[in-house]
Amino acid sequence: MRALVTNDDGIHAPGLRVLRERLARDWDVRVVAPDRERSAVAHGITLHQPLRIFTVDLDNGHPGISVSGTPADCVKLAVLELLDFRPDIVFSGINPGPNVGVNLNYSGTVSAAREAAILGIPAIAVSVCSPEARHFEAAAECAALLGAKVLEHGLPRGTFLNVNVPDGDRGEIRGVKISRQGGARLEEAFHKRFDPRNLVYYWQGSETHLFGEDPEEDGVAVREGYISVTPVRCDMTEYALLEDLASWEIGW
Amino acid sequence: MRALVTNDDGIHAPGLRVLRERLARDWDVRVVAPDRERSAVAHGITLHQPLRIFTVDLDNGHPGISVSGTPADCVKLAVLELLDFRPDIVFSGINPGPNVGVNLNYSGTVSAAREAAILGIPAIAVSVCSPEARHFEAAAECAALLGAKVLEHGLPRGTFLNVNVPDGDRGEIRGVKISRQGGARLEEAFHKRFDPRNLVYYWQGSETHLFGEDPEEDGVAVREGYISVTPVRCDMTEYALLEDLASWEIGW
Repeated sequence: MRALVTNDDGIHAPGLRVLRERLARDWDVRVVAPDRERSAVAHGITLHQPLRIFTVDLDNGHPGISVSGTPADCVKLAVLELLDFRPDIVFSGINPGPNVGVNLNYSGTVSAAREAAILGIPAIAVSVCSPEARHFEAAAECAALLGAKVLEHGLPRGTFLNVNVPDGDRGEIRGVKISRQGGARLEEAFHKRFDPRNLVYYWQGSETHLFGEDPEEDGVAVREGYISVTPVRCDMTEYALLEDLASWEIGW
Repeated sequence: MRALVTNDDGIHAPGLRVLRERLARDWDVRVVAPDRERSAVAHGITLHQPLRIFTVDLDNGHPGISVSGTPADCVKLAVLELLDFRPDIVFSGINPGPNVGVNLNYSGTVSAAREAAILGIPAIAVSVCSPEARHFEAAAECAALLGAKVLEHGLPRGTFLNVNVPDGDRGEIRGVKISRQGGARLEEAFHKRFDPRNLVYYWQGSETHLFGEDPEEDGVAVREGYISVTPVRCDMTEYALLEDLASWEIGW
């Protein structure tokens, strides 16, 4: 089986290294990842600039391809141009930091998995759900186990998995919870400051607050010591509203 | 009623000007928009840089605030810091170009509306669904009509409207269709080229292909001469998969 690995922290990030090493035990693994940190770029793609690629040495002489673009660019370019095969599965991560709740909108890690799903390839986004993430090994093991299950069962077209793992050793993690995207959100505040010329600037807070009490929520599951696995859909339509909207007299 | 207007084409874009002028007939309108073109940045936000703001003169001396960030940054900063009121509604646009199908992932225009919905404010993203969009007036009129209806009926929390208008005068447009996100997608190809030093680069195609035959799809509705109005949800969970995943023996 052949896997593409990418991330949003850049091709030399430690989370990607641990993930690649673990997956390489089971699969033929190729790495195509951004040439630098690109977190919070969401599902952005590069249309107004060319993309440059370079072959880089990863750990133990393993080669990877760095791309001067976003995580979504990496997946598109890898699948459509760079790889000499179509991957059976795409992994994105391991992201150091929570990708739960509202962060699914902002996350480059999650968007790489979504881009794979759009291209019809099963995908898993993996994060260690702590801003000081240190334990990538348990998350990598979880990714490998889940990847095997995804290849066994398949995923419906237009869906992928978003996985958040507590920051601990395997023995400290209580198990796996299938969860829904919850109410966790980024710190909703800008710090207003003045530069050396006394001109104002704003800097956005970025701490993730794990709100919510419902154990079915992604952030709550992790807070309680579980690996959170959320099935994500690409179709954004709110079907429940179609009928209601059709009854509006818009007056065109 | 008070409206915030933003876009992803930059504060001086003609689509924003036409929209602001039309909405100002009915509402107190404030403009907070990116200082430059930021299309295809999706729902990216700026965490690693400060944001600078400047007051700029729009048409007829109307002031606006430009922000050195993304469309989502503009909405967050406007609502949390810059405005002296909470807007009743947020409009994003008018985007020249289709925001249908897969483009909902990449679009800064759509993401600004999504950010408003996340903040609990009703929102409408408006695009003229043609790469050579020339007729913003009909789209602005449609935005004003729909905005009034949204304020009358409300929208469920965590939802917003994505509107695509044919590129024509009002009389040429056949009506309004409530639609779902369809199968339209960006050109799936990279142009491989060589720079003056004979080094390879890739440039992503960006033409939108309006695939699909189902008249309930956004792109098809516009192709047939209708305004497409799609209700979009912020919750990305694929609920239909929760039970199935719970039956997997992941083996942790």
